[in-house]
Amino acid sequence: QALSEIVGMGGGGGDLQGTGARPLSKRRVDLHGFCKPSDFQRSPYLSARGNVANIFRGSTEEGYKAYHADKYDEDKNPNGIINFGTSENKLCFDLMSKRLTQTDMNLMEPPLLQYPDWKGHMFLREEVARFLTYYCKAPAPLKAENVIVLNGCGSLFSALATVLCDPGEAVLIATPFYGGITQSVFLYGNVKLVYAYLDSKITGTSTRPFQLTVEKLEKALQDARAEGVTVRALILLNPQNPLGDIYSLSELRDYLEFAKRHELHVIVDEIYMLSVFDESATFHSVLGMDRLPDPQRTHVMWGISKDFAVSGIRFGTLYTENQDVANAVASLCYFHGVCGPVQHKVAQLLRDREWINQVYLRANHARLKAAHTYVTDELKTLGVPFLNRNAGFFVWIDFRKYLKTGTFEEEMLLWRRFLDNKVLLSCGKAFECSEPGWFRIIFADKTHRLQLGMQRIRKVLEEREQEILAEEKEQPCQSEQDGKADSTDEVIFVSHHQEPNCAGGSNLGDLIGLLQQQMRSSDWLQKNSEKAEQFA
Amino acid sequence: QALSEIVGMGGGGGDLQGTGARPLSKRRVDLHGFCKPSDFQRSPYLSARGNVANIFRGSTEEGYKAYHADKYDEDKNPNGIINFGTSENKLCFDLMSKRLTQTDMNLMEPPLLQYPDWKGHMFLREEVARFLTYYCKAPAPLKAENVIVLNGCGSLFSALATVLCDPGEAVLIATPFYGGITQSVFLYGNVKLVYAYLDSKITGTSTRPFQLTVEKLEKALQDARAEGVTVRALILLNPQNPLGDIYSLSELRDYLEFAKRHELHVIVDEIYMLSVFDESATFHSVLGMDRLPDPQRTHVMWGISKDFAVSGIRFGTLYTENQDVANAVASLCYFHGVCGPVQHKVAQLLRDREWINQVYLRANHARLKAAHTYVTDELKTLGVPFLNRNAGFFVWIDFRKYLKTGTFEEEMLLWRRFLDNKVLLSCGKAFECSEPGWFRIIFADKTHRLQLGMQRIRKVLEEREQEILAEEKEQPCQSEQDGKADSTDEVIFVSHHQEPNCAGGSNLGDLIGLLQQQMRSSDWLQKNSEKAEQFA
Repeated sequence: QALSEIVGMGGGGGDLQGTGARPLSKRRVDLHGFCKPSDFQRSPYLSARGNVANIFRGSTEEGYKAYHADKYDEDKNPNGIINFGTSENKLCFDLMSKRLTQTDMNLMEPPLLQYPDWKGHMFLREEVARFLTYYCKAPAPLKAENVIVLNGCGSLFSALATVLCDPGEAVLIATPFYGGITQSVFLYGNVKLVYAYLDSKITGTSTRPFQLTVEKLEKALQDARAEGVTVRALILLNPQNPLGDIYSLSELRDYLEFAKRHELHVIVDEIYMLSVFDESATFHSVLGMDRLPDPQRTHVMWGISKDFAVSGIRFGTLYTENQDVANAVASLCYFHGVCGPVQHKVAQLLRDREWINQVYLRANHARLKAAHTYVTDELKTLGVPFLNRNAGFFVWIDFRKYLKTGTFEEEMLLWRRFLDNKVLLSCGKAFECSEPGWFRIIFADKTHRLQLGMQRIRKVLEEREQEILAEEKEQPCQSEQDGKADSTDEVIFVSHHQEPNCAGGSNLGDLIGLLQQQMRSSDWLQKNSEKAEQFA
Repeated sequence: QALSEIVGMGGGGGDLQGTGARPLSKRRVDLHGFCKPSDFQRSPYLSARGNVANIFRGSTEEGYKAYHADKYDEDKNPNGIINFGTSENKLCFDLMSKRLTQTDMNLMEPPLLQYPDWKGHMFLREEVARFLTYYCKAPAPLKAENVIVLNGCGSLFSALATVLCDPGEAVLIATPFYGGITQSVFLYGNVKLVYAYLDSKITGTSTRPFQLTVEKLEKALQDARAEGVTVRALILLNPQNPLGDIYSLSELRDYLEFAKRHELHVIVDEIYMLSVFDESATFHSVLGMDRLPDPQRTHVMWGISKDFAVSGIRFGTLYTENQDVANAVASLCYFHGVCGPVQHKVAQLLRDREWINQVYLRANHARLKAAHTYVTDELKTLGVPFLNRNAGFFVWIDFRKYLKTGTFEEEMLLWRRFLDNKVLLSCGKAFECSEPGWFRIIFADKTHRLQLGMQRIRKVLEEREQEILAEEKEQPCQSEQDGKADSTDEVIFVSHHQEPNCAGGSNLGDLIGLLQQQMRSSDWLQKNSEKAEQFA
């Protein structure tokens, strides 16, 4: 389970086995009842940062536990929870199992059983360089000496944050984004994120919802600087998770030029680059650009977990021309090592271009597209707006009309309502989305699970609709529904806009918010002892 | 290559391909020539701590590079470097390759290809619990829920240091010790080590050289506290690396009671526990004790890299009853994940008790013993004192009589002389040994390499002896040789004692010393910008 998939999903314990269809007012009471910050005792055995790590786990593990304690299984547990929350591709285990058990994979020679170069075995780095040259359409062959391999992109975020930033310094990122990055840069590195908030409004230079523009990056950077925060880098996700956006070459160039102007490193996460499942869309890797504006500050990451549907095989890679960065990261690679025999397997996989192109990618893209079509057709039938994209495993869905007052507390209640009805989604809060009511669904799953999951979602939404109608009859003045569906081929979208809502209350969402606030405070770990008391 | 094996070996570049037998005076000039601190430019692309990571690599990679650029191979490169530096068991690849390629190992089921529980798959944690219960002779079955698995014990040191200590706090350890721990607790965690210096003198309560006593721990702790350093934990290595010592039950109890009195966590590294190769020696795991003085503060680590001769398969495990520590470490395990298919392999390996006992351990212990006997017999022939132990892969050797003035600079020159003569050892400085002149030899290697390596060592020592004789003739007053061999069955040992020598000079050893000094300074990373300038 990716950390990102857990944190901010709203976890929280106590009432997970409760029945789903109780009225909202009742649930609200439960929520306040089961999750007080005081439940999280400061442990006398841990350091202040150890307590943060412990609380992160404590506050988020429940949703994960709920799923693992009650996993859906077609035969053995048909009433179990369907997982639309974890960003995994479950459509290609057949292909991958078959390929990974072929005889060329099973090598156990002495060099693979000895300590490796912590940057990765050279045979693998060479293979990665060839692979990226080809799939990123690099104008000149990429070099093995610029490649580092380690056990996943989470580790890479941790290592890069540590070598590029000192404690309390920051990295700029646009929201909504894959929430695991927050912990990846903070838990070891004590690096915080500075947010450029995107929203769904289409105004001015934003011609699509949640559009990333240089203006928004500039504003976030200036705001951070005004607050005395030192920003060292910009993170770009391309294809974007959870939006599914792919950046055009000119957009990429704009972002990179912005970073260059401000001497910011750019960390480009292209982990979904081969999961663009519609031929109408073209992905552009920064490694494919004719000229990088600031090559010494441009660092590209990729891994096999998403594009090859094997999140359990821990492998990520960094491509950077900057040898200082490469060497500093390599020192940390001691903590992120990949087994020798696995390095052999990955090299074999990456070099099998014919199988990848003729067998794997064809099947994978067709399966992803069919699954995406199924889920988005269902959403259309339900009249639910969503971003209609063709990259990644996710659909970004606008459930705002199912919130009465448009608060994150309501969003969490809706998230829990889904879980009570045995379908696990990710709520917008988990991605630091500024508008309450957005959810991410992972569609890269088998048809029977998609059908059942969508059925459960439909049930919740229909019930919720009825409740809102009933509540509106009681209090007709409080209706705020003014959104209207804007249905184009690319985007089905409600332009209704709400400001971020900061409603209080001692629920889990707030606790996570408090934690994240702490993490944004530059001197948090310095003031450790007093701060840690806050959790007592 | 284990980080420990690289750092402090004295690396340094420039003259690695130089011929070996030049006079000392000439070499000294070279040394000053090739390695000035100013060679290490502060990189403008890195944070202060990123620069430390980069310099660590820069300053230490050369020895490692020299070996990898010129590896000995019986057929292809008979004049290449023999590696007696890296603590690996090269005696059992045949057995391990065979076992790891049997059909039960090659499983690729979907759960192994998906995100795991970051504490490790339950099937593996259960197997680890059973394995440790059996081999540690636990009085009651150990529990799977107290087990965490991750990608190596270096990662575990990093994670434990981070969750037990805040930045600038410290962990107590006796020297000499496996030097990689320094970086493991510092690079991410910014945790420093406080040293209890052991020495070779036999006096008072110390009945063996480098004996660890509670008095020495008490003194180091009080000294650190007097300097305002907060010490949170004690690290015990058992069997000890590089000494090869095994602690008796009563010694273990004393150390644990000491820690309890001071509310220190104890991290017990038992990674060589199955590499006790003589039946006359009995290893006692703390997990085998009837009663732990402070179970909530006792954390035990083990891994397969040493005992199963597979350092390339990244797997380490933590056993702790403290669920706060377990949960906090588990949050960090996201960065230290082990591939699902590898978790299956390790579980299969650990459960095959019959193969382990009847085939593997018998062969491994016999091979280790034979190799140890060969090397120690050679040392006896050479008249070189050493600690005669029967655990681990190393012999701790007293080369002090080959130093003229007993300085660490001379130690490094001797280390480089060995390297120039194509045999790589580890010098005492790499283990923070307080007495210059001690070296560690890894003997867990094939006979033909042991023979050739010992031949090269003999050549260096004989040349060195001649030089010292010649120098003494020139300057007879400077002789300080007063050691005498003390040859018992257990220890062959010179009781000659020298105080740590702090002679200056801008060589690599000093730079490493400076770095380590920085790391010991509690507020080093806070004062980052000024400090980083020191390297410019």
